Amino acid sequence: MASHSSTLLSSPTFAPFSSHRLHHSPNLSTLRFSNPIRSNKPNLALRCSVSIEKEVPETERPFTFLRDSDDSSQSSSTSSVRARFETMIRSAQDSVCEAIEAIEGGPKFKEDVWSRPGGGGGISRVLQDGNVFEKAGVNVSVVYGVMPPEAYRAAKGSASDQKPGPVPFFAAGVSSVLHPKNPFAPTLHFNYRYFETDAPKDVPGAPRQWWFGGGTDFTPAYIFEEDVKHFHSIQKQACDKFDPSFYPRFKKWCDDYFYIKHRDERRGLGGIFFDDLNDYDQEMLLSFSTECANSVVPAYIPIVEKRKDMEFTEQHKAWQQLRRGRYVEFNLVYDRGTTFGLKTGGRIESILVSLPLSARWEYDHKPEEGTEEWKLLDACINPKKWI
Amino acid sequence: MASHSSTLLSSPTFAPFSSHRLHHSPNLSTLRFSNPIRSNKPNLALRCSVSIEKEVPETERPFTFLRDSDDSSQSSSTSSVRARFETMIRSAQDSVCEAIEAIEGGPKFKEDVWSRPGGGGGISRVLQDGNVFEKAGVNVSVVYGVMPPEAYRAAKGSASDQKPGPVPFFAAGVSSVLHPKNPFAPTLHFNYRYFETDAPKDVPGAPRQWWFGGGTDFTPAYIFEEDVKHFHSIQKQACDKFDPSFYPRFKKWCDDYFYIKHRDERRGLGGIFFDDLNDYDQEMLLSFSTECANSVVPAYIPIVEKRKDMEFTEQHKAWQQLRRGRYVEFNLVYDRGTTFGLKTGGRIESILVSLPLSARWEYDHKPEEGTEEWKLLDACINPKKWI
Repeated sequence: MASHSSTLLSSPTFAPFSSHRLHHSPNLSTLRFSNPIRSNKPNLALRCSVSIEKEVPETERPFTFLRDSDDSSQSSSTSSVRARFETMIRSAQDSVCEAIEAIEGGPKFKEDVWSRPGGGGGISRVLQDGNVFEKAGVNVSVVYGVMPPEAYRAAKGSASDQKPGPVPFFAAGVSSVLHPKNPFAPTLHFNYRYFETDAPKDVPGAPRQWWFGGGTDFTPAYIFEEDVKHFHSIQKQACDKFDPSFYPRFKKWCDDYFYIKHRDERRGLGGIFFDDLNDYDQEMLLSFSTECANSVVPAYIPIVEKRKDMEFTEQHKAWQQLRRGRYVEFNLVYDRGTTFGLKTGGRIESILVSLPLSARWEYDHKPEEGTEEWKLLDACINPKKWI
Repeated sequence: MASHSSTLLSSPTFAPFSSHRLHHSPNLSTLRFSNPIRSNKPNLALRCSVSIEKEVPETERPFTFLRDSDDSSQSSSTSSVRARFETMIRSAQDSVCEAIEAIEGGPKFKEDVWSRPGGGGGISRVLQDGNVFEKAGVNVSVVYGVMPPEAYRAAKGSASDQKPGPVPFFAAGVSSVLHPKNPFAPTLHFNYRYFETDAPKDVPGAPRQWWFGGGTDFTPAYIFEEDVKHFHSIQKQACDKFDPSFYPRFKKWCDDYFYIKHRDERRGLGGIFFDDLNDYDQEMLLSFSTECANSVVPAYIPIVEKRKDMEFTEQHKAWQQLRRGRYVEFNLVYDRGTTFGLKTGGRIESILVSLPLSARWEYDHKPEEGTEEWKLLDACINPKKWI
């Protein structure tokens, strides 16, 4: 009934790049998108110009969502970063979904595939009300769009009085939120994305821009220290293969990002988060993103295996539901991609699949000091060094 | 554990006035508040200067939250609008709570009273997990603050090159959200508020400003036409006593305000909503607000009486929970008072008591055409003339 224009470039939690880049970077000031589809609504506070077409449902997964001109090669060693990033995120989607279905032992993901006539598209997979998972969503998307000139960071080499026209961009990402049923099994979120602009044709010397973003973080309702240490250790291992500064830096970035200001609490117990990364070798960052995405299954699945059949009481379940309420608060109020996606007319069901199947708000709930619930809350208020 | 500065002027759903006035009025451009308590946080997008002190819990309800200087009289006929408005909202709180407790037949409201040393305070009442109501919150608050000069609408008579300093203001309101358990009994929200500034001392001729805002709207999960007609008829009756243009105008305003943009749906089936009202006689608007607040019980309670014991299935309950999810989306993403309150450090538990005890998000849920669920959704997408 409701009809929406849709941009898949929108969801942070569920989209290829974070709106952060477009809104808050000191290099990209006063950006306003204007969306031709919705521009007749005067009260739309934020507009999105990215001229992205309406998506078309597909019955089969295409071999690639890239435009022909980008699908440079059959040999992966010489193919473009765009092509290899798409291969990587689709492979990550497959391996995470396989691992989830293996635990589920029966229930399968429901898949929605769509494309856009001018190139780009996506695959949404959702498994709802399974044996182990309340709701598990794993999405990939590839977006071709055009960004307004203000969003393009002019290169130093270009003449300062010469502004580029609208700049074509490419964005691709994998995003996932996994909410298990058992209150002792943590929720997991991960998202890895790659963004690239073309070189503006009308500004000689202005180069192509690119950056990587992403992270993996987890949100238990109860703390099992061995689980938290295991999870963070795997993140650190992935980081340490590339740069010893990555884990401490991205761990802190994660604690800072998933902050529910009005509660003065983090959403969960963190992990890693990074954005706007481009000051390293591009191949290195592609490998790093791949390593992080490949670390999701070993970091998370053993924990779910261990906790999924633990006995629990109604009280445990109610506390999990309260924490799910906090998850909703973070995603709807603060998450850049979600809020950006909602305002710019992204595919709503893909964006909001990050929300739990159910959540709870009790008035003025305060866990008693020293209880397991209190310990979790304390760790959300005062982020700890876990390893 | 978490400590918050608190301004009760914040919640639209749960506060005396709407932030709309402070942010979007064409007369009050570029308003930024700066909050001394929180100003050391660089990433706080929105700041609130209103120098409101931290609230102090009280063991007893005071006779008034007004400053001595405002509590002008023992005789109501000569007392100030401030004093009469406080009396009105406290009486509305009492009568709604009495009616709810009468239906509950046992469970009682839990009351939190607080005050601020320099004047002002509030009473929050919550009844949670009762016999009939999942969550019922009824709050009143009185706030004294100081608004930045940009927020004061300079009078025509004042010299245009003379800007006032910070302007003291007064705000008071009653706010309530009532979520019943039975999926056939609708959720109700109402809020009536009054706002007044002092006359700036340093700008001769600049007058005191005042305005009224508020509304009553309801949100069923299933449509019973007789209920919707009854509810809207009572709103219209209250309006028609004052101005025949009020009901059609405020009905439309309500449909426009409670709009979930990203869904292209209204939150519910409307009612009345108005804001920034000052272009009528002040006494008339005080009487009108009083009439509206007094209409809450006759408009709503008979509907709950009729629906509270109806038999329902799990499917009915799940649909109610999905609609509660939409309620959460509206309140956290769009409601001006809630978003303003969260960003400026209002009393979180008072602001978020508007959220339901539980809510649900299913991926890509679409009711089958022609079903009762579809009819409700259709009415939220295409607002109807009910009477």
